[in-house]
Amino acid sequence: MTTTQVTLVQIDNYGPWTTTPEPRREMDLQTLQSRLFADIAQFLGHRDAYVFFTRFDNMIAVTNGVDGAAHAALQESIGNRYPVTVSLGTAVAERPVDALEAANRQLQVEGSAQDEHRTEVLAGEYLAETTPSDLQVAHFDVVNATGKYTDQLNEFDTFINIERAYGSLMRHLRERHGALSFFVGGDNIVSVCSDLPEGAFADAVSHVGEDVDVELQVGVGRGASAHEAGFAAKHALEDCRHDGTSVELFGAPAAGD
Amino acid sequence: MTTTQVTLVQIDNYGPWTTTPEPRREMDLQTLQSRLFADIAQFLGHRDAYVFFTRFDNMIAVTNGVDGAAHAALQESIGNRYPVTVSLGTAVAERPVDALEAANRQLQVEGSAQDEHRTEVLAGEYLAETTPSDLQVAHFDVVNATGKYTDQLNEFDTFINIERAYGSLMRHLRERHGALSFFVGGDNIVSVCSDLPEGAFADAVSHVGEDVDVELQVGVGRGASAHEAGFAAKHALEDCRHDGTSVELFGAPAAGD
Amino acid sequence: MTTTQVTLVQIDNYGPWTTTPEPRREMDLQTLQSRLFADIAQFLGHRDAYVFFTRFDNMIAVTNGVDGAAHAALQESIGNRYPVTVSLGTAVAERPVDALEAANRQLQVEGSAQDEHRTEVLAGEYLAETTPSDLQVAHFDVVNATGKYTDQLNEFDTFINIERAYGSLMRHLRERHGALSFFVGGDNIVSVCSDLPEGAFADAVSHVGEDVDVELQVGVGRGASAHEAGFAAKHALEDCRHDGTSVELFGAPAAGD
Amino acid sequence: MTTTQVTLVQIDNYGPWTTTPEPRREMDLQTLQSRLFADIAQFLGHRDAYVFFTRFDNMIAVTNGVDGAAHAALQESIGNRYPVTVSLGTAVAERPVDALEAANRQLQVEGSAQDEHRTEVLAGEYLAETTPSDLQVAHFDVVNATGKYTDQLNEFDTFINIERAYGSLMRHLRERHGALSFFVGGDNIVSVCSDLPEGAFADAVSHVGEDVDVELQVGVGRGASAHEAGFAAKHALEDCRHDGTSVELFGAPAAGD
Repeated sequence: MTTTQVTLVQIDNYGPWTTTPEPRREMDLQTLQSRLFADIAQFLGHRDAYVFFTRFDNMIAVTNGVDGAAHAALQESIGNRYPVTVSLGTAVAERPVDALEAANRQLQVEGSAQDEHRTEVLAGEYLAETTPSDLQVAHFDVVNATGKYTDQLNEFDTFINIERAYGSLMRHLRERHGALSFFVGGDNIVSVCSDLPEGAFADAVSHVGEDVDVELQVGVGRGASAHEAGFAAKHALEDCRHDGTSVELFGAPAAGD
Repeated sequence: MTTTQVTLVQIDNYGPWTTTPEPRREMDLQTLQSRLFADIAQFLGHRDAYVFFTRFDNMIAVTNGVDGAAHAALQESIGNRYPVTVSLGTAVAERPVDALEAANRQLQVEGSAQDEHRTEVLAGEYLAETTPSDLQVAHFDVVNATGKYTDQLNEFDTFINIERAYGSLMRHLRERHGALSFFVGGDNIVSVCSDLPEGAFADAVSHVGEDVDVELQVGVGRGASAHEAGFAAKHALEDCRHDGTSVELFGAPAAGD
Repeated sequence: MTTTQVTLVQIDNYGPWTTTPEPRREMDLQTLQSRLFADIAQFLGHRDAYVFFTRFDNMIAVTNGVDGAAHAALQESIGNRYPVTVSLGTAVAERPVDALEAANRQLQVEGSAQDEHRTEVLAGEYLAETTPSDLQVAHFDVVNATGKYTDQLNEFDTFINIERAYGSLMRHLRERHGALSFFVGGDNIVSVCSDLPEGAFADAVSHVGEDVDVELQVGVGRGASAHEAGFAAKHALEDCRHDGTSVELFGAPAAGD
Repeated sequence: MTTTQVTLVQIDNYGPWTTTPEPRREMDLQTLQSRLFADIAQFLGHRDAYVFFTRFDNMIAVTNGVDGAAHAALQESIGNRYPVTVSLGTAVAERPVDALEAANRQLQVEGSAQDEHRTEVLAGEYLAETTPSDLQVAHFDVVNATGKYTDQLNEFDTFINIERAYGSLMRHLRERHGALSFFVGGDNIVSVCSDLPEGAFADAVSHVGEDVDVELQVGVGRGASAHEAGFAAKHALEDCRHDGTSVELFGAPAAGD
């Protein structure tokens, strides 16, 4: 059984800020958002957690092993270095979506995301310890994406295919299994799941093939942290690439990692 | 009639690099990608151009007013500061997708995106001058996204709605009009279009409403650069917000901007 | 008695890289160096350690509480995201300079800083635990720097005064006490010391006044980490500012910090 | 005759901000300062200008070729992305120090650097055009610094030597010639000078050797921009390294640069 700790990172009152006193330059907003995400990725990544950019003003993180003090340090550091602040809600559940739902409620009960008085909320519960199979992560990519798309189509039409595959997969895994799936660039999608069997991944690959005609392959890993599970998934996906299989489970982490 | 200059930014041989000699930590890749995007956003943004993260390993930029020397400077600076290099293909056409198609071909004829010997391509044509209505940009957002989604649902389910709206809109505008539409965070979508009339935007809003049941509004602007057109679009969108309209065209840029 | 853990961060073979195949643009080098420093400051800062930019290609860190695994993670992450790599040598001693000397030797015995085959050295010893008075940090600034210098002189002449004060202080504390002192911007100097009495700081302030005619004040703190000691020092320095004293010791850390 | 345009970049009311409501974490301040410097280095560097970190809260830039609109864009972008704002004063003179003096006065007449109401000043005059020998830049480094210092001494004692050489050189060139000299990392010092003859540089090298017993070499370049002059200086310094000379003037820029 999985135990997933999820943190919602929400920029406080961001929408109004972007247009006050008048609209800010779009490229400055893009820079601010992506650098904030990068900083959080570094902070959490070095603690073996994952964060996904999602909508940038709201980011979803998988934070098993990161305690309340670390969340407080992250929040303080952002407040010291950015013109915006963030609220952080954290919760734990077997299924990722249930953890997110509870994490999200921690902020919603304190007020609206656009309430200028609801800033720097830090709320929730954190796992006291981690165990080796708390997390299951699946790493999908598109079979021969460079040969079939990138080198053939214009980039936007390539992107349409990747985006359709992502949309199809993320909805399927959310509805069927309560998993949270994120596009992470290129042709890569990372899903944080509960304890799903091999058949569930084969079904997901089939579903996307039938739904939008894009062929996926997937490696699946387990671990005590998002990095550990995700790294095992990356190794399993390498096995797919080398062996031409479409689902590989529980790849062993590299020695010393 | 619009005249759109589009640049494709492609990280050279990136896929293999991410797994050589073994998979690199996902949060380091996320950090690298988002900071590279941020740097390009700053470089181009200060020249009144726009860049969109798209798939991060391939980014699409609208670069009217940015000449070949500036493209060369960007490429050199990235090569000096990152462990990866980029290729840049640029082309001009009335419709954004046609410009991208030609820009993309500049790189494809030189070799595969995963050809380790095809690095730092710098190719294409650049507009010699700009005129005040070369570009049309539309800025969409979701009506009352915070009240209807962010404050009510968990973030992933909110994201599913935004993502579906984006997918529906980007495909509609691509197929019908050759426009390129990009999610830019929150509930915002920026479309780079040819010279579309008001009815085309009203149709797009209707289409998304019927297709995925998300209500959009849109401001549209014209200008000599992506920033100028996009900034006018932002102001027009502010008018939608204040007046409750769903389409506003050609908002005047703020004085002095 | 203090117990200081010092880490030398050295960019591998950096000099030759900056001029190969021909000199790289100075502003790209400045950007690379200062962002690398910023990343290390974030990584170590969140672990309550300090790093100083020193010469940028060689940075000195005070890393009590940061273990070998964290040093390895930092080294790997830099290798994943920068065009250069770093070597890290760590050692422990009562006096900061002795710890640095031993840390430095860890790298020197492996080869020259410009030996292209000596890369990513990770060597040394790390404290197994920390105790509340392991570190002593002094935070100096210039009395009324804004009124006397910044608002009166041109910035370079202001800087000459600050630089002279820094040079005088850093040499005095190094020779007399084996302390390591770093300019951290503005008119601020942070010294990492062994267990010096109040008189040693009063002497240092007098020495600089006589030597270069710049009036300093100083707050001194103790703690289990560089942040803890440095934060107490900042609070003590606030007392100097409010009370007009020139030396304040062992300011209590703020509640909850 | 040289024509030097200098810009003073001053963070508004920074000192008080760093301690309000209580002292901020030192590593957050270091990160903020060095990233702000890096952003300005990118912005100005891509316009062939130079900026030096100096005291970080006050930075000195050599901005021939950068007009008032670009200065305004830089100021706005920083205000959009940082928790602090900057004021910019610019002036032109033959000698760098005279340009800085006038640039600095542009801000001083508007109020104190710590006046909370004096924010985002943008003042001064900008050159209407550039000519090929407007700027003279000298690039110094220490002869065999790695062999004599880095690989032999502990890093702090190495730094003491470099710092003493820098202090000696910067004061000599300031007093004798009104030049502005900046440590740029490693063992490198960049001087922005007026039209000095070869003998002035030989004298400077001798002065430092006698004063603090550190042996320097120097390449000198001319150009229409800081980058052009500085790049020629770097090439000239390469000649020193290869030929064992201590002063090389007017190195030719690399073809195509």
